[in-house]
Amino acid sequence: MAEESDLRFMRMALELSARGRAIAPPNPSVGCVIVKNGVVIGRGYTQKAGGHHAEIEALQDAAGRGADVAGATVYVTLEPCSHYGRTPPCAKALIDHRVGRVVAAMTDPNPLVAGKGLAMLEAAGIPTERNVLQKEAWESNRGFFTRMTRGTPWVKLKAGASIDGRTALENGQSQWITGEASRADVQRLRSESGAVLTGIGTVLADDCRLTVRPAGRDPASVRQPLRVVADSQLRMPEAARVIGEGGCLVACASAGGIRAAALRARGAEVVSLPGADGRVDLRKLLAELGRREVNDLLVEAGSVLNAALLRAGLVDEIVLYVSPMLIGRGRGLWDLGPYQSLSQAEKWSYHSVARLGEDLRIDLRKN
Amino acid sequence: MAEESDLRFMRMALELSARGRAIAPPNPSVGCVIVKNGVVIGRGYTQKAGGHHAEIEALQDAAGRGADVAGATVYVTLEPCSHYGRTPPCAKALIDHRVGRVVAAMTDPNPLVAGKGLAMLEAAGIPTERNVLQKEAWESNRGFFTRMTRGTPWVKLKAGASIDGRTALENGQSQWITGEASRADVQRLRSESGAVLTGIGTVLADDCRLTVRPAGRDPASVRQPLRVVADSQLRMPEAARVIGEGGCLVACASAGGIRAAALRARGAEVVSLPGADGRVDLRKLLAELGRREVNDLLVEAGSVLNAALLRAGLVDEIVLYVSPMLIGRGRGLWDLGPYQSLSQAEKWSYHSVARLGEDLRIDLRKN
Repeated sequence: MAEESDLRFMRMALELSARGRAIAPPNPSVGCVIVKNGVVIGRGYTQKAGGHHAEIEALQDAAGRGADVAGATVYVTLEPCSHYGRTPPCAKALIDHRVGRVVAAMTDPNPLVAGKGLAMLEAAGIPTERNVLQKEAWESNRGFFTRMTRGTPWVKLKAGASIDGRTALENGQSQWITGEASRADVQRLRSESGAVLTGIGTVLADDCRLTVRPAGRDPASVRQPLRVVADSQLRMPEAARVIGEGGCLVACASAGGIRAAALRARGAEVVSLPGADGRVDLRKLLAELGRREVNDLLVEAGSVLNAALLRAGLVDEIVLYVSPMLIGRGRGLWDLGPYQSLSQAEKWSYHSVARLGEDLRIDLRKN
Repeated sequence: MAEESDLRFMRMALELSARGRAIAPPNPSVGCVIVKNGVVIGRGYTQKAGGHHAEIEALQDAAGRGADVAGATVYVTLEPCSHYGRTPPCAKALIDHRVGRVVAAMTDPNPLVAGKGLAMLEAAGIPTERNVLQKEAWESNRGFFTRMTRGTPWVKLKAGASIDGRTALENGQSQWITGEASRADVQRLRSESGAVLTGIGTVLADDCRLTVRPAGRDPASVRQPLRVVADSQLRMPEAARVIGEGGCLVACASAGGIRAAALRARGAEVVSLPGADGRVDLRKLLAELGRREVNDLLVEAGSVLNAALLRAGLVDEIVLYVSPMLIGRGRGLWDLGPYQSLSQAEKWSYHSVARLGEDLRIDLRKN
């Protein structure tokens, strides 16, 4: 059991890590707090890829305050790296600064590197501790860790619905079932995702952009998720607004041809990932996104693609924004069933439930 | 602003009031705490109709402990009564016991009696205070207060559903979408309700009893809600299990005949409350239940009756037990819509949300 003060400072580091979530991908977003004599003397979190890791940010923060980190305790939400990647190893920087102790929330889950950063510190005579708020730390970068261990992104299916499970009226109207706070939260989800997936049906119906539109700022000034459209028959119009900042990947089941060329000319990337049923092979698509270093895939799709992903067991998390509105007849969340027995129904469990303005935000995980 | 100690003891009294909810109807369930020198010397809550009110219970509790209530402060969740009803007036008992001060969460909302109990105390030289946790106190007996002021019961529509708003599979299977904790909570709701309303469709499909079935006890040993069936065409079978302990009222739209006689012979009461559309007039039904002193009406019905009540604006509260199960195609909560515009949809708001075993219990109120 970790000491109370260790838990407290690690919680601070976890809070800091959240600030880097929109800029860090494809890196994990790490938080770091440096403490000396019970006082925080440095704070940092992962900058955008190629920029500083959290530890370096915290060391520089301490230096900027004129604080001496020698002998201090370093709290970091992920084991410091030990390799030369886009940046030099953080473990080496901590050794060079003669810190006194390093507490890591978790070791790197990549079996090839797990423990090497901490071992490097130990070899330099710096005592280390691990697995302090490990579960919370895993949760904070579940996309990155999932990609590292499984090769595919963490798949988060998002939907806005009425309390009776309707995403739109029968005539398709859905603006707005959920409130402003929910829609702002969806913007946050997009900004933290490496890619957003939708189906061609949604593109044709809504001509959605699926970009991050930061209030009062140019969308081009922020990291945009890759937009991914599952479009088996390549029905996507060249003028679709989903082709834009951040790139657009169109996954189809029938290679090439004039349609693909037209979309490519507009800037979209077209890949053919045919499955046995003549549709896009969703497993192949997730593997492709894993290769492209997408940690978190946000699914914002209609009931057909939602159901296909669910039936294939490819969804890790469901995020529902539920409005206290009664709609009755209308469009459903996912085109599942009809089942003959309740034992066939999908069993999930509630991970978290929160009020969000007038709505509820319900987070479910697979059992 | 009430003092902290007043709030604390009134909260205690409110907690006590909850214990009487299953036995008090048609009376309100009141809680009472008697405090002297900062120490609780008596506690009580409303007994079943004809039994003691909370104040008398608390006075007897104090006497049983050998405590002298003279000069003590009495916290009561509703103004003490001032009239001879089933019992002598509680205000008189408090005066006779020479209590020092009376704090009431709220005055009696019945305009004919409002304030008279407290006035009787004041006239006897006992200082009183009112409106301490008034909102919570109103909430604790909202059925009684609604009947007093509106003449009809508080109508609580209850349903169990999957997270995608399904109450059953297409084939009708619904056992069990929600878990044990939810089902136990429904038993509590029934035990606290004066009546339970369902439609003939549900009776024909499920042959439901809608009784309180206390674990390990004879259902005849507890107060059973009146079972009410909306059965416009009198299709109810004589052998229906809903006819049983606590009584069964069958509301139809076509008077008498052999069907009514057969049901009456089995012990059911049959009333004809025809509306303009040839169906049971739901407003008349609620007025009838108000006359029968039903404070709280629990609706456990199918989508047709649910929708009829909602459309008529007769539902005060919706209690949903929501299971983390995905069902897809299946039966809906209420047969509303299709709407042409979202502005037509019913707007409610979340009153409370709680985890209940693996489910959520979501309580909504009309905006």
